[in-house]
Amino acid sequence: MAVASHPLDSFFAPASIAIIGASRDTQKIPGLLLAFLRKNAFPGAIYPVNPNYPDIDGLACYPTVTAIGQPIDLAIVIIPAPAVLGALKECAAVGVKNAIVISSGFAEEGGNSTAMQDAIAALAKSTGMRISGPNAEGYFNELKRVAATFSPTVDVKPEQPRLLATTRRIGIVAQSGGIGFAIYNRARALGIALSTVISTGNESDLGAGELLDYLVQDLATNVILLFIEGIRDTDKFLAAARRAAESGKPVIVTKVGRSGAGERGAASHTASMAGWTAAYDAVFAKYGFVVSNDLDEAVTIAAVLTTTPLPKGNRIAVVTVSGGAGIWAADALSAQGLSVPELSEGVQSTIRGLIPSYGSPRNPVDITAQAVHSGGLQKTIELLDRSDEVDAILVVISLSSETRMPFKMPELKPVIDAQRKPIVFWSYTLPSNFARTGLAQSGVVVLSGLAHVAVALRQLTQYAKFNLPAATKLVATTLTDLSAYLEPATLSERDSKSLLRAAGVSLPDETLVTDKAGLDGAIDASVFPLVMKIQSRDIPHKSEVGGVRVNIATKDQAAAAYDALLASARTHRPDAVIQGVLVGPMAKRGVEIIVGTLQDATFGPMVMVGLGGITTELFKDVIYRPAPVSAEEAAMMLGELKAAPLLNGFRGAAPADGPALAALIAQVSQLAAQFTKEIAEIELNPVLVHPAGEGVTIVDALVVRKGS
Amino acid sequence: MAVASHPLDSFFAPASIAIIGASRDTQKIPGLLLAFLRKNAFPGAIYPVNPNYPDIDGLACYPTVTAIGQPIDLAIVIIPAPAVLGALKECAAVGVKNAIVISSGFAEEGGNSTAMQDAIAALAKSTGMRISGPNAEGYFNELKRVAATFSPTVDVKPEQPRLLATTRRIGIVAQSGGIGFAIYNRARALGIALSTVISTGNESDLGAGELLDYLVQDLATNVILLFIEGIRDTDKFLAAARRAAESGKPVIVTKVGRSGAGERGAASHTASMAGWTAAYDAVFAKYGFVVSNDLDEAVTIAAVLTTTPLPKGNRIAVVTVSGGAGIWAADALSAQGLSVPELSEGVQSTIRGLIPSYGSPRNPVDITAQAVHSGGLQKTIELLDRSDEVDAILVVISLSSETRMPFKMPELKPVIDAQRKPIVFWSYTLPSNFARTGLAQSGVVVLSGLAHVAVALRQLTQYAKFNLPAATKLVATTLTDLSAYLEPATLSERDSKSLLRAAGVSLPDETLVTDKAGLDGAIDASVFPLVMKIQSRDIPHKSEVGGVRVNIATKDQAAAAYDALLASARTHRPDAVIQGVLVGPMAKRGVEIIVGTLQDATFGPMVMVGLGGITTELFKDVIYRPAPVSAEEAAMMLGELKAAPLLNGFRGAAPADGPALAALIAQVSQLAAQFTKEIAEIELNPVLVHPAGEGVTIVDALVVRKGS
Repeated sequence: MAVASHPLDSFFAPASIAIIGASRDTQKIPGLLLAFLRKNAFPGAIYPVNPNYPDIDGLACYPTVTAIGQPIDLAIVIIPAPAVLGALKECAAVGVKNAIVISSGFAEEGGNSTAMQDAIAALAKSTGMRISGPNAEGYFNELKRVAATFSPTVDVKPEQPRLLATTRRIGIVAQSGGIGFAIYNRARALGIALSTVISTGNESDLGAGELLDYLVQDLATNVILLFIEGIRDTDKFLAAARRAAESGKPVIVTKVGRSGAGERGAASHTASMAGWTAAYDAVFAKYGFVVSNDLDEAVTIAAVLTTTPLPKGNRIAVVTVSGGAGIWAADALSAQGLSVPELSEGVQSTIRGLIPSYGSPRNPVDITAQAVHSGGLQKTIELLDRSDEVDAILVVISLSSETRMPFKMPELKPVIDAQRKPIVFWSYTLPSNFARTGLAQSGVVVLSGLAHVAVALRQLTQYAKFNLPAATKLVATTLTDLSAYLEPATLSERDSKSLLRAAGVSLPDETLVTDKAGLDGAIDASVFPLVMKIQSRDIPHKSEVGGVRVNIATKDQAAAAYDALLASARTHRPDAVIQGVLVGPMAKRGVEIIVGTLQDATFGPMVMVGLGGITTELFKDVIYRPAPVSAEEAAMMLGELKAAPLLNGFRGAAPADGPALAALIAQVSQLAAQFTKEIAEIELNPVLVHPAGEGVTIVDALVVRKGS
Repeated sequence: MAVASHPLDSFFAPASIAIIGASRDTQKIPGLLLAFLRKNAFPGAIYPVNPNYPDIDGLACYPTVTAIGQPIDLAIVIIPAPAVLGALKECAAVGVKNAIVISSGFAEEGGNSTAMQDAIAALAKSTGMRISGPNAEGYFNELKRVAATFSPTVDVKPEQPRLLATTRRIGIVAQSGGIGFAIYNRARALGIALSTVISTGNESDLGAGELLDYLVQDLATNVILLFIEGIRDTDKFLAAARRAAESGKPVIVTKVGRSGAGERGAASHTASMAGWTAAYDAVFAKYGFVVSNDLDEAVTIAAVLTTTPLPKGNRIAVVTVSGGAGIWAADALSAQGLSVPELSEGVQSTIRGLIPSYGSPRNPVDITAQAVHSGGLQKTIELLDRSDEVDAILVVISLSSETRMPFKMPELKPVIDAQRKPIVFWSYTLPSNFARTGLAQSGVVVLSGLAHVAVALRQLTQYAKFNLPAATKLVATTLTDLSAYLEPATLSERDSKSLLRAAGVSLPDETLVTDKAGLDGAIDASVFPLVMKIQSRDIPHKSEVGGVRVNIATKDQAAAAYDALLASARTHRPDAVIQGVLVGPMAKRGVEIIVGTLQDATFGPMVMVGLGGITTELFKDVIYRPAPVSAEEAAMMLGELKAAPLLNGFRGAAPADGPALAALIAQVSQLAAQFTKEIAEIELNPVLVHPAGEGVTIVDALVVRKGS
């Protein structure tokens, strides 16, 4: 593949760096940064800028950036906040291509400081100079030896040589410097190679989305770890996400701020079930991101991705030297929904020849400590790697020894190099440096947390199966003007259903009876048993005012229900303007589902589907996606519901009409995406899904106007 | 507290040890064991026994155990399996008090080898000499310096001094030597002190239950870690569990073998929802054990328990030097159901005086890196320790430096020593040895896994609230002979309900109509609408044969239903013997619950309650306890259901009659416990729970005979 150039190449691999505010004091940030840059052997030119020094550590020091008189790819700015804008203007004036503002004291402090940051953003826009930060911790491009950061994790300690077990490299984008470099710190300890780690700071110009995009196209980055507090450059982020999915580059994402204060105050029913990070998770799901909410877990997933091929299925062989540890591993894998199948008699018989009589060839394959020394371990791994009975191999072993290695390394390396499926190593004792270093030479990362290993194998099994749905085009409906339907400030069920019908959504025939004389006609237009519901724009929750009557079997019952509905409404809501009583047939039985849309502040219109009834809230079984979705993508959403078995014919029931439900979800999502300015929310609750071929029935519906 | 003596004192703290099969070869198990025993400075007498050596490593070596001629508290046997029984007999003959058989080749190999193990068990029983193993890895009593094991984890490495952060000690009982010593290995790396770790081997005599009991009464053990594959000495285990709960000594338990082949083949409906480890989890729940299924998580919980007091509530303060890491920590805690409350203005105002302006005093309390050096970190911790607004403090910090400590140790130690609530330290970078060692001097264990820390705090919050329910006495019912009800091989609903009524369980009045002439009388004895159900011992699943008719509103409908039920049964099951048609009133609405009992192979009768209907299986919302339970304990079970909100008045519904349901669970559990020889299973499904004060209705019931 030809290496295309990218506008940010000069940012991430600069030929020259100016440090504005450089210092001789290596106890402080400016001095530390320069020291790290030099200790990591940056191959380009370094220009310290500080009027107080003629030189620093043998480098000529310049009074201003202008005084350098040479082309500068990257300026790192570490001076008091009030001086930053002036320095950046000077940089732009002399043609500096990129800048990182390490200095703090901007939007994170509010008030006037925010205005200073806005001015920085405006400068970037007007000059084309790209600016990262302010309040950033910088970046470390380990491959190109650019330590443009003061993070102590990039310090070079000759007594601690870099452990390198992988040739594939991770890249890290983090909206927290502490966490970004902590991910690097932990990955490095495992021997995972790095391309670049960058902390995004306040993102006045360069945002997490654009930086993600850089790593997505960067050929030196094979796996991306992303730490998000909140995306600011949404469109760039979504474009990068799509590009990652299309190019098959895995993104492991952590989104924080899932709890507490960030939750929407006045959330609607649908939104409140989401929690405000549901939209993020929906976007991650859409693009096949691997979500992880623990540091070691995320790094474990990265370790597997950088050392092994993707699993082709979910069948795992556990090869163990300890019976108890092997059972534990099998449990942990099974708890993640992975399969630990008993091996065929043929494979078992071959393994029996490699292990002592008191071992077990079944799976877990207990080769016993004895078979480690006899070479049975490596031969078993080789055998299982060639077998089509399993899709991955988890080797369970004790690697705490500082002196003895359980593998003959010259024999292991070819096995690992040729692996056809993931061969993953978990040590139940703490792995020693000796073992880590030895196995790294064969390209093995030794993993230490069993639950994390099991999660990683499950996540990668799912990732391997992921297919990006084709981008959904908005299908223009014949309905281009909803204004007639959106006149009232709030819409009743009747109003909502009228709008939906006009938009082409199929709904049961119902009649609004506005005075009792019309009741007989409405009954004749329907079939018993009937349902009758009070209609008023002032009564959003009909059942709370006794406003719904079901199973009405005769005309007399209907007449009585009519009177009772009006009386009950008058009693509970004397001021409500009553539209009438909606009369229609009782719906056939079906699986109770809720379908809806809402608008997310970051990602715009979202569509949701969930198991209906009381269980929706109790078990939070709801799936979201950015709207619009195709019917194909809607079907994927249905597959993710915990209640999916209910739709697929649970306990002998007929399978439900999933295609009809998926079509409805797609249709509603299109409507929400087309009319984002007019429609805030749609809620169809319940939708009854009938047996295959018999469609769905929307029992109740509510459309909420934007701004209402 | 006076230290009571215990029969196993001489096993765990022997004054003298004979090693039968001792060797000079320290590459092999017998030689390794002797070397570890001596390197750990065992203070008592050591007698190697091996006819091939006059001495080993300066110790006199004896040809036989008899030749020693001194009292021997513990013999460690490491000779080929066929010679073991003879050696043990000789030990018993000369009055050896205890033995550990390290040798393998017994029940784990099956066949004749099992018989050898049975002979060992018989010898223990007949002589009173206590025997651990065979196939054991031995034990390590670190406090008393008894390394009676060949596990390399007990090796003494002068270049790696023992890190000790805790004065409270853990004890470990493991049914896997590999895992038992791996727990020790990981706990040791964190600086957690140990009393004793023991691997139980094949448990010919000394079982995991009895060994657990020893650690429960051992004053040197403050926290117990238990690794179980399957309990053999059930009664001793249960007694030890009760003793641990009564004495408030925490037990952290891992049970493996939760997946796969162990599952019951021909499980009943109720049992199949359990999975076969449900009984273990029920016992753990009953005695307040802390269940953990991950090594590092279990060790993290132990670390918190050995260093801090128990939390008095679930409100956690997060004190962080990194904004991103603090948000992540708050998320992780919230995900565990813990609260991270915003602090009061008063507390915030005090904290503001301790931190820079760009920090945040809200919670997470972001003190910023600046406040570490100014002492604000320690002062904030002190302040929050004294505050009654939080119940625990999580300190989030980077401790990767090998040279700089973020605390002034002489100032930190008094804070930690005086802590009124858990003060827990999580480092988002990998903690350095330097930091671990430094903080250990203040009694701090540095934790590294965030999710594990959050789980630990949640588990300990729950553990602190745990109260052992009073032991449930069996209340003798008037019904002491069930034989009349258990004559048929299988019981129909009608048979089952008759049995339950006779046992005092309250059920709706129903009439069995055996010929059509009796129908009118049955109708008159009931009220419309009716339910009518076919009754046959040959038809266990009535609905599958169209055997249930509901909502019958008139005599005509009843007559038609009667005919239809019989016709449908004849069509589907022409050979079934029909008892008749059961006629009774439709039940009032209520929350649909399932109540049942079954017998577990290890723990005997169990009682279960779950959310009824389709959701029971879909969401596996089922709670078990050993039967019998009191109504109080049954109420605790209800509180553990995910569906508990449904019973407590969900979304404005009236609270359900929990007390009536708890009373029913207790009653059924009593019945199952009293008639363990007669009744295999009871299933009441559904039980409808009506609003408070209105009781419950058992709609359907099935009793399964033992042996049927």
